[in-house]
Amino acid sequence: MSKLTDVPKRILIGRALRSDRLGETLLPKRIALPVFASDPLSSVAYAPGEVLLVLSIAGVSAYHFSPWIAVAVVVLMFTVVASYRQNVHAYPSGGGDYEVANTNLGPKAGLTVASALLVDYVLTVAVSIASGVENLGSAVPFFVEHKVLCAVGIIVLLTLMNLRGVKESGKLFAIPTYVFVVGVFVMIAWGAFRGLVLDDTMRAPTADLEIKAEHQGLAGFALVFLMLRAFSSGCAALTGVEAISNGVPAFRKPKSKNAATTLAAMGLLAVTMFCGIIGLAMATNVRMAENPANDLLRDGSPVGDSYVQNPVISQVAAAVFGDGTFFFILLAAATALVLFLAANTAYNGFPLLGSILAQDRYLPRQLHTRGDRLAFSNGIVLLAGAAGLLVWIYGADSTRLIQLYIVGVFVSFTLSQIGMVRHWNRHLAAEKDQAKRRHMVRSRAINAFGAFFTGLVLVVVLVTKFTHGAWVALLGMVIFYATMTAIRKHYDRVAEEISAPEGPSDDVVRPSRVHSVVLISKIHRPTLRALAYAKLLRSHTLEALSVNVDPAETKALQEEWNRRGIDVPLKVLDSPYREITRPIIEYVKSLRKESPRDVVSVIIPEYVVGHWYEQILHNQSALRLKGRLLFTAGVMVTSVPYQLESSEVAKRRARKRQEWSAPGSVRRGPADERAKESDKASTKASAKASTKGSAAESSDGKS
Amino acid sequence: MSKLTDVPKRILIGRALRSDRLGETLLPKRIALPVFASDPLSSVAYAPGEVLLVLSIAGVSAYHFSPWIAVAVVVLMFTVVASYRQNVHAYPSGGGDYEVANTNLGPKAGLTVASALLVDYVLTVAVSIASGVENLGSAVPFFVEHKVLCAVGIIVLLTLMNLRGVKESGKLFAIPTYVFVVGVFVMIAWGAFRGLVLDDTMRAPTADLEIKAEHQGLAGFALVFLMLRAFSSGCAALTGVEAISNGVPAFRKPKSKNAATTLAAMGLLAVTMFCGIIGLAMATNVRMAENPANDLLRDGSPVGDSYVQNPVISQVAAAVFGDGTFFFILLAAATALVLFLAANTAYNGFPLLGSILAQDRYLPRQLHTRGDRLAFSNGIVLLAGAAGLLVWIYGADSTRLIQLYIVGVFVSFTLSQIGMVRHWNRHLAAEKDQAKRRHMVRSRAINAFGAFFTGLVLVVVLVTKFTHGAWVALLGMVIFYATMTAIRKHYDRVAEEISAPEGPSDDVVRPSRVHSVVLISKIHRPTLRALAYAKLLRSHTLEALSVNVDPAETKALQEEWNRRGIDVPLKVLDSPYREITRPIIEYVKSLRKESPRDVVSVIIPEYVVGHWYEQILHNQSALRLKGRLLFTAGVMVTSVPYQLESSEVAKRRARKRQEWSAPGSVRRGPADERAKESDKASTKASAKASTKGSAAESSDGKS
Repeated sequence: MSKLTDVPKRILIGRALRSDRLGETLLPKRIALPVFASDPLSSVAYAPGEVLLVLSIAGVSAYHFSPWIAVAVVVLMFTVVASYRQNVHAYPSGGGDYEVANTNLGPKAGLTVASALLVDYVLTVAVSIASGVENLGSAVPFFVEHKVLCAVGIIVLLTLMNLRGVKESGKLFAIPTYVFVVGVFVMIAWGAFRGLVLDDTMRAPTADLEIKAEHQGLAGFALVFLMLRAFSSGCAALTGVEAISNGVPAFRKPKSKNAATTLAAMGLLAVTMFCGIIGLAMATNVRMAENPANDLLRDGSPVGDSYVQNPVISQVAAAVFGDGTFFFILLAAATALVLFLAANTAYNGFPLLGSILAQDRYLPRQLHTRGDRLAFSNGIVLLAGAAGLLVWIYGADSTRLIQLYIVGVFVSFTLSQIGMVRHWNRHLAAEKDQAKRRHMVRSRAINAFGAFFTGLVLVVVLVTKFTHGAWVALLGMVIFYATMTAIRKHYDRVAEEISAPEGPSDDVVRPSRVHSVVLISKIHRPTLRALAYAKLLRSHTLEALSVNVDPAETKALQEEWNRRGIDVPLKVLDSPYREITRPIIEYVKSLRKESPRDVVSVIIPEYVVGHWYEQILHNQSALRLKGRLLFTAGVMVTSVPYQLESSEVAKRRARKRQEWSAPGSVRRGPADERAKESDKASTKASAKASTKGSAAESSDGKS
Repeated sequence: MSKLTDVPKRILIGRALRSDRLGETLLPKRIALPVFASDPLSSVAYAPGEVLLVLSIAGVSAYHFSPWIAVAVVVLMFTVVASYRQNVHAYPSGGGDYEVANTNLGPKAGLTVASALLVDYVLTVAVSIASGVENLGSAVPFFVEHKVLCAVGIIVLLTLMNLRGVKESGKLFAIPTYVFVVGVFVMIAWGAFRGLVLDDTMRAPTADLEIKAEHQGLAGFALVFLMLRAFSSGCAALTGVEAISNGVPAFRKPKSKNAATTLAAMGLLAVTMFCGIIGLAMATNVRMAENPANDLLRDGSPVGDSYVQNPVISQVAAAVFGDGTFFFILLAAATALVLFLAANTAYNGFPLLGSILAQDRYLPRQLHTRGDRLAFSNGIVLLAGAAGLLVWIYGADSTRLIQLYIVGVFVSFTLSQIGMVRHWNRHLAAEKDQAKRRHMVRSRAINAFGAFFTGLVLVVVLVTKFTHGAWVALLGMVIFYATMTAIRKHYDRVAEEISAPEGPSDDVVRPSRVHSVVLISKIHRPTLRALAYAKLLRSHTLEALSVNVDPAETKALQEEWNRRGIDVPLKVLDSPYREITRPIIEYVKSLRKESPRDVVSVIIPEYVVGHWYEQILHNQSALRLKGRLLFTAGVMVTSVPYQLESSEVAKRRARKRQEWSAPGSVRRGPADERAKESDKASTKASAKASTKGSAAESSDGKS
C-alpha cells in the first residue's frame, strides 16, 4: 500500500504518452452505469418470463406465487448489491471475484471462480443474443423464424467488430441502455395509470389462452421445489452484477464511492423493472408455458408447433402500448440492442479476465500484455466459438440456455463473499482504530449474510437445475479448471528448471571464444551486408560458409569471391543429397566438438518481404535451419535482415495494427491505474511467491 | 560436357556418404521395366474399352472398325517409342520432356510442357484409381457400389504412404506388374487356343445385350469424326511412355542403351496386350456403350441405372477363364494393383518435376532441395487434393475422366519431339564426323515424324474431345502456367533488386560500430547465458534492456542485478500500456537515429521446448518482436537458445524426420548422377543467364 507514490516519474511519462495517443478517459457515473450495467439491466427482459414459465408447470393458479418469488429476487438483489459495495470499497483497484477469492481463499478457490466466470462469459453471449433475437422477433417475425441463423449471424458480427478492435465507447452504451430503461419505466407507469386510474382492461396477446398444467394440484415438497426452481430462474436477473467491481479504476474520483453509488443505482433500477414487469404480466394475464406447443391451449386444443411464444416484456408492451404501435416497436428494438450490448460486454470481459489469469500464469503469458492483438483474437474466437456452439445446440432458445446460466454466477458470488469475510477478518486482526473496526465489522456482517444467501441460492440452483442443463456449465468449468492448472504446472516446472542459482552469475562454464560463420549462397546485397555486420562483431574467428548443392553454382561463387577480393575465408560444405540443413548442422556440431567451450555464432542473411505469399517463396530453408540450430547447444543464431522494397507494405500494415485498441480497454481503466494496482498485487504476491520458483514467471512473455 | 571429370572429390565423398546411408541402387532392366512402365502398361486395362465405347455410338456394326483403330494406336505407339529412344540417347542425364522443350524451344514451350505434365500427373492419379476401383468391382461388387468412397479412400491411403515417405522399391513394382503382364498374355494365349484350336464359343457376360445406336447409319464426315474420337480414346494407352526418358540416370550402365531397350520392350508389351484385348473383345462379343443404362438393351428394353458396366479386360477374362474363377479374380486383383501403382507413379513424378521447375525458379526454391519433407508434402497434398476433387466431381467414372486425360500427354509429346528436331539441327551444324552425322539425320527424321504424328493426334484430340472435357485439362494447364510465370517474375525482380554491384564489396555505407542490446526479463539461466555470449562478442557497446511492464517486477530485477554484480549496464524502458514490442522497437530506432552508421545487435534469450503446445506458452513475444525487428534497417537479431529438458523430444523427432526418403528417389537415380547432369545443365544455363540477373537465384533457397 505504501508504494502508491513510488513511481511518480513513470506515471508522469505514462500520462504524457497516454493523453496524446489513446485518449483513455475516466467514466462519469452516468456513463459508467450503462457501460457496466447493460448486462444486469438487460436480464429483466427474460428473467420475469422464466419465473412464469416454471410456475406454469403447476398450472395458471401457481402464477399467484410470482409476487413472492419477485420479492425473494429483490431481497437477493439487495443482498448482492450491498455485498459488492463492500468489495468495491475494499478493492478500489478493481478486484474482481477472481482476485478476491484468490487473495483470501487461495489459488484453488480463485481458479474455481475464474472457471465459473469464463463459462459465464460464454453463456452471457449465448443467452443475451438468443433473447435479443426473440425480442426482435416479437416485432419482426422473420427473426424468430430464422432464430439460429440470426443468433449466429449476430455472434459473427460482434466477433468481427471486436477482432477489428472497435473501441468500447461510453455513448454507444448510454443511448440504447437509457432508451431501454426509460422505455420500461414509461411502460410500467403508463400501465399502472391505465389500470389503476383509467381502469382500462389491458389484455396481453396470450390472455385468452389456457395453460394445461403438467402437474395439477402440486402441494407440499413438490410445490416448494417448483417455487425454488422458479426462483432459480428469476435469479438470472442478477447476472453481471459483479461487473462494476472489476471496473472501479475506470470511474472518476472518488472511485470507490462512485462505483458503490452506481452499483446501488443499478440494483434499484433492476429490481424496479423486474417487479414492474412481473406486476404488469399478472395484470394483463400473460400466459407462458415451458412447452408452449403442448401446454398452451386455445379453445381447449394445443396451439401446436407453429406457435411462437413471445418474451414477457414484449407481451406486456403489446398490452400496454398496443401491438405494433411505435412505442411497442421502439421498446422491442431497444431491448434487443441492450441485450446485444450485454453480449458485447462478455467480449470485453473475457480478455480482461484472461489477462489477469495470464499474470498469475494460468493462461499463456502473452495474454497479459495489453494490445497483444493475436492473444486477444484467440480469446475472442474461443468465446465466439463456444457461444456459437451452444446457440446452435440449444436452437437459440433462451429458456433452455438459461438453465445453464446461473450456476457459474452463484459460484463466483458465493466464493467472492466468503473471501470478503476472510478479508475483513484479516484486517480486523490488524486494525486498532475503533471507528474503523466498527465499520469493518459491519461490512463483514453484510458480506457474511451475502455469502450465506448466495451459497443457499447456489445449492438451490444446483439441486433444481442440475438435470436441466446445469451439468453442462459444471463440465465447462471443470475443463477450464483442468486446462489452467496444467498450464500453471508447466510454467512452474520451467521456472524451476531455468532459475539461476545464487552466487556469482557465471555458474555456467564460461565460454571462451566465438566462432562466427556467415551463411552464403550467392554474392548479393543481403550477403554483403551480413558479411559487413559480421566483421564488425570482432568475433575470434570468422568464416563464410556455403553448401555445395550445385557444383557449377559453387564454382561461380568461389570465382566471384576471389575476384571481389572478399577478405573472409569461404568454406564450402559438400551436400551429396542437395540438403542444406544437415551439412550445416553437422559442421556446427563438429566445431563444437573440436572446442567445446567455444560458442558458434551462425549469421544468416534474410530477405524481408511484404506479403505472406512472397514469404512462401523465400527464407524457407533459413527458417528450417534456424529451427534446427536452436536445438543445438552452444549456438547463437543471428538474422541479418535485408528489406526488399515490398517490405514497406508490411511495415505500414504493422504500424496500422499497432493503433488497434484491445476490447475491454474502457472498462479496464487507464493503464497507469492498473499498474498501481498490479504493483500492490504483486507486492502481496511476491511475499508468497518465494516459496516456489515463481520469480521467473514474467520471462515467458518477454524472452 | 567437359565438366564430367571436374568434381572427382565431390563424387567420391558423395559415394562414400551414400553407400552407408541411403543405399540407393541402380536398376537392372528387369526391375526398371515395371518401375517405369506400370503407367503405360496398366492403361491397356481401360484404353481398349474406351475405343469400343465410342464406336458403340454408331451401333454394334461400328465395332468392326476397332481393329483399324488398334492398328493406328500401334503405329502411334511405335512412333512415340522410336522417338523417345532418340531422347534417351540424346539426354542420358534424364532430360524429360520439360527439359527438352525448355532447352531447345525456349522457356515458354518448356513451361507449357511443364503445365501439361503437372495436369497429367493429377489425371494419372484420378484415372488410374477410378479404373482400378472398377476392376476390383468386377470381382467384388462392393467396390463399384461405393466407387467414389473407395477411390477417395485409396487416394488418401497413397497420400499418407507417400507423406510418410515409403521408399519406392523395385520389388514392390515388379511382382504385380509381371503378374499382370503374364496374366494378360496367358489370357490372350488361352483365348486364342480355345477359339482357334478347340473351336470353343467364348461369350462375354454382355454378349447377349444389344446396343441402341445413338446415331444409326453414320457415314461420311460424321463417321470419320467418330472414328477419330475412338482413336483419341485409344491413345490413352500411350500415357506414361515418357517416364523412362526422365529416369535414365536410374539405369545400370550403359544407361542410354538399357533405357532404350526397356522402352522398346515396354512398347512391344503394351501394343501386344492392347491388340490382344481388342481381338478377344471382338471374339467374345463384348458389348459396351457410353451410356449403358439407356443404350444397352436386354431383350429389347434398356438395362437401366442399376446396370454396372464392367471394364473390357474383366469381361474378356470372364469369357476366357470363366466368371469368378481363380484366374479371373487373380487377373482382376493384379490389374487393380498395377493401376494403383500407376497412380503412385504420379506421386513420385510430381515432386521430381517440381524439383526441376524449382531449379528454374518457376516454383518455390525449396522444392529443389532433395529430402525437403515439407516441400514434398505440399506437392503431394496438392496432387492428392486435385485428383480427389476430380474423382469426386466425375463420380470416379474412368470413362468421363479419360476425356480430360489425353490432351496434356500429347502437348508434351509434340513439343518434346519438335524440341528434339531442333536439338539435332543444332548438333548437325557443329558435327563434322560423317558417320555421326548420318546417325543424327536418321534420329532427326524419326523425331520429325514423331512430332508430325503426335501433333496431328493432338489436333484430333483437341477437336474431338474439347467439349467432352478436354477444356478442363486446358484450364488446369493455363492455371499452372500463369502461377509459375508469376513466381518466376517475382524471383527475377528480387534477384535484380539484390544483385550486388560490381566493384569492391563495400558498396553499401560501411557500418562503423555495433551497439549490442540483450533483452532481459528476469535473471535466470537463459538470460545469463545470453549475457555471457553477448560479452564474448566484443561489440563496441553492450547493455541489457528490460521493459517495465510491472513496476514491482522491474524493481526486483534491478535489485537482483545489483546484488549479483552483473557488469553490464541495465536499461529499463517504460511501457505504460504493458506493451513489449513497441518500446523496444522505438528504442532501437532511437539508437539508429543517434548514430545512423551504427548497427544495433538485439540479442534475445529464447527457450527451446519440445512440443508445439509448449511452444504456444513461450516465446510468443520474442517471436513477434523478432518479426518486427526484421523490418527495421541496420539491425541484427540474435537468438540465444536455451534448451529445456523437453526439447530432447523435438530433437529426436527431427532426427527421425531426417531419415525420411523423398518419393521419387528410386526413379530419379542416385544424387551424384543428377549432380553431373545439373552440372551440364547449369553450364548451359549460365551461358544464357547472364542476360538477366538470374545469378542470384539459388540464394532464395539458402538465405
